[in-house]
Amino acid sequence: MFRSHNFSAGPSILPTEVLQKAQAELLDYKGTGSSIMELSHRGPEYIEVDAQATARLKSLMGLGDDFEVLFLQGGASTQFMMVPYNFLGEGKTANYLNTGTWSKKAIKEAKLFGKVHIGFSSEDENFGRVPANHEISHLEGAEYLHFTSNNTIFGTQYRSEPESNDIPLVCDASSDFLSREVDVKRYGMIYAGAQKNAGPAGVTIVIIRKDFLAKARTENVSTILSYPTHVGTMFNTPPVFGVYFFNLVLEWIENQGGIKAVEQANEAKAAHLYAEIDKDDFYRGTAHADSRSRMNVTFRLPSDDLEKQFVKEAAALHLDGLKGHRSVGGIRASIYNALPRASVDTLVDFMVAFRSKNG
Amino acid sequence: MFRSHNFSAGPSILPTEVLQKAQAELLDYKGTGSSIMELSHRGPEYIEVDAQATARLKSLMGLGDDFEVLFLQGGASTQFMMVPYNFLGEGKTANYLNTGTWSKKAIKEAKLFGKVHIGFSSEDENFGRVPANHEISHLEGAEYLHFTSNNTIFGTQYRSEPESNDIPLVCDASSDFLSREVDVKRYGMIYAGAQKNAGPAGVTIVIIRKDFLAKARTENVSTILSYPTHVGTMFNTPPVFGVYFFNLVLEWIENQGGIKAVEQANEAKAAHLYAEIDKDDFYRGTAHADSRSRMNVTFRLPSDDLEKQFVKEAAALHLDGLKGHRSVGGIRASIYNALPRASVDTLVDFMVAFRSKNG
Repeated sequence: MFRSHNFSAGPSILPTEVLQKAQAELLDYKGTGSSIMELSHRGPEYIEVDAQATARLKSLMGLGDDFEVLFLQGGASTQFMMVPYNFLGEGKTANYLNTGTWSKKAIKEAKLFGKVHIGFSSEDENFGRVPANHEISHLEGAEYLHFTSNNTIFGTQYRSEPESNDIPLVCDASSDFLSREVDVKRYGMIYAGAQKNAGPAGVTIVIIRKDFLAKARTENVSTILSYPTHVGTMFNTPPVFGVYFFNLVLEWIENQGGIKAVEQANEAKAAHLYAEIDKDDFYRGTAHADSRSRMNVTFRLPSDDLEKQFVKEAAALHLDGLKGHRSVGGIRASIYNALPRASVDTLVDFMVAFRSKNG
Repeated sequence: MFRSHNFSAGPSILPTEVLQKAQAELLDYKGTGSSIMELSHRGPEYIEVDAQATARLKSLMGLGDDFEVLFLQGGASTQFMMVPYNFLGEGKTANYLNTGTWSKKAIKEAKLFGKVHIGFSSEDENFGRVPANHEISHLEGAEYLHFTSNNTIFGTQYRSEPESNDIPLVCDASSDFLSREVDVKRYGMIYAGAQKNAGPAGVTIVIIRKDFLAKARTENVSTILSYPTHVGTMFNTPPVFGVYFFNLVLEWIENQGGIKAVEQANEAKAAHLYAEIDKDDFYRGTAHADSRSRMNVTFRLPSDDLEKQFVKEAAALHLDGLKGHRSVGGIRASIYNALPRASVDTLVDFMVAFRSKNG
């Protein structure tokens, strides 16, 4: 079986074993004579899938009974709107940390529904870093503090949760969800589009603490946009195949030894790659050293032409998806959970050879 | 290969050939060494999928350059909100025809954003029929007339588009999309959750006429909820696998001979089933004869106990998904495009035997 070294930023590589399992039962789910895609979401098979995915996620992340898990649609871009729609309004303010393209989009939506305090911005430094705790300005009485835990485009990531002065954190964790342990008790809400570490595009995982959920507004709200609508029941047809696949990915994480084991593997992959970048000045990491992402490793070469050549020669070795985001250029190696260590090794070997030929 | 006779109302049966193709290339899409689920939505492979699906849909439905096609998320339940969010507002009114559970949900959302005129309601007749044209009350200057072309729960369906007095039709076509030819020029918008005739749950197909789209409000709108955001570009990550699968379903419809051929097969399947229901009083159709659905055939038996027995004995023959919606009871046979004629024949044979044993 031919599998490429897939460094795509998202949609991105999924565990081979999970794809194989999905493939094997695609036309006959557990002897039903139907695909999981063909079964009613109110039937026993899908209800079990939903319950398993919820239980596995809670167990893996250490989420207690004070958290609800929702499987929604529309990606983080929909959450950018739903969060302020539910938790802001006349006279209410939230604190947003502006660390990149996705943070900016979240801020734009929040301003439609309430007041926004910008507790930090690295925009005038081309988003090359995330804040240290002492740089964050706080606002008494803010409804929540919103941050983007990992910035795919600029290759930055918080080492740990930002200080929030006891205000609930709301996190867009789309691009490092399930890649490392998090301190769940500090969050009012964590949301993530699935298409990096969790499954195919089209499922959005929302984890919400009950006491935070209780503050969602309930007057004159659109049913589908209201978080309480989705708690404890399937309000509308969920993205069945996506949740099914997510459940298999969670099982795969269990088989890896849990999130801590996955985190250690991710650390090792990232360390190997950054060590090669830091060897001399041929490769230059674009993020500040203390803000570097373990998920998206962004770097430049001495010239645009060499970057083009790098992407082209890499692709010939099936090292795919290495071109940086169209808004910043350069090289981006996305090294999500499912990317094997062997793919990082192959990339580093190629980088060594490319430098020695062109450096 | 074991395939059940799948009469589920949705998610529901998909063409076996399409599932087989998706299965065959699930780990290696066209020699890339990646699943289509693992490829960037900005890459050439997915861009081609998106373009093919759009072109095929336009060709099959006879949609000219005056229509846009969007692939969104969140199902019809999200469109219930997006339609009035975009096209209603202070002082604006829309006409809604109330023919069942889904119509009512659409009306509830519309009232949050503007005024609603109820042009017809069959609620006091337990939604057993859709209106004749002369029963519809019109409203001068309405922004649109909204109707649900097929009502899955009550088993009713419009024979053709309702009269609208030149006001653009907006149609929730979720449960009969692509099952028959429609007069596209009468519509401002057609939307459908994919999970009946179009593919797996998680893709929403939106067809919108450009002159209608031009009336969408643009001031202070949430980016993701605004239709213009999604025209001509992928604003956010689409549900890649769902659109890929939808494209294969469209190819399958082409191979059946197009929508007209599918419609004829659907008519024949429905006629065979209704003929059995109408043979005597043992089975009783719940919808008025002139409002009967070709997609969801709903009927009762002489007693609740016999209905339970019917569902149980049918399941033993792999005639699955026949239990009526929890809100109305009885029997519901959903006979979507992908359900083979042989499955309807098997059901009818079973019905004959069941009557002769219990009638």
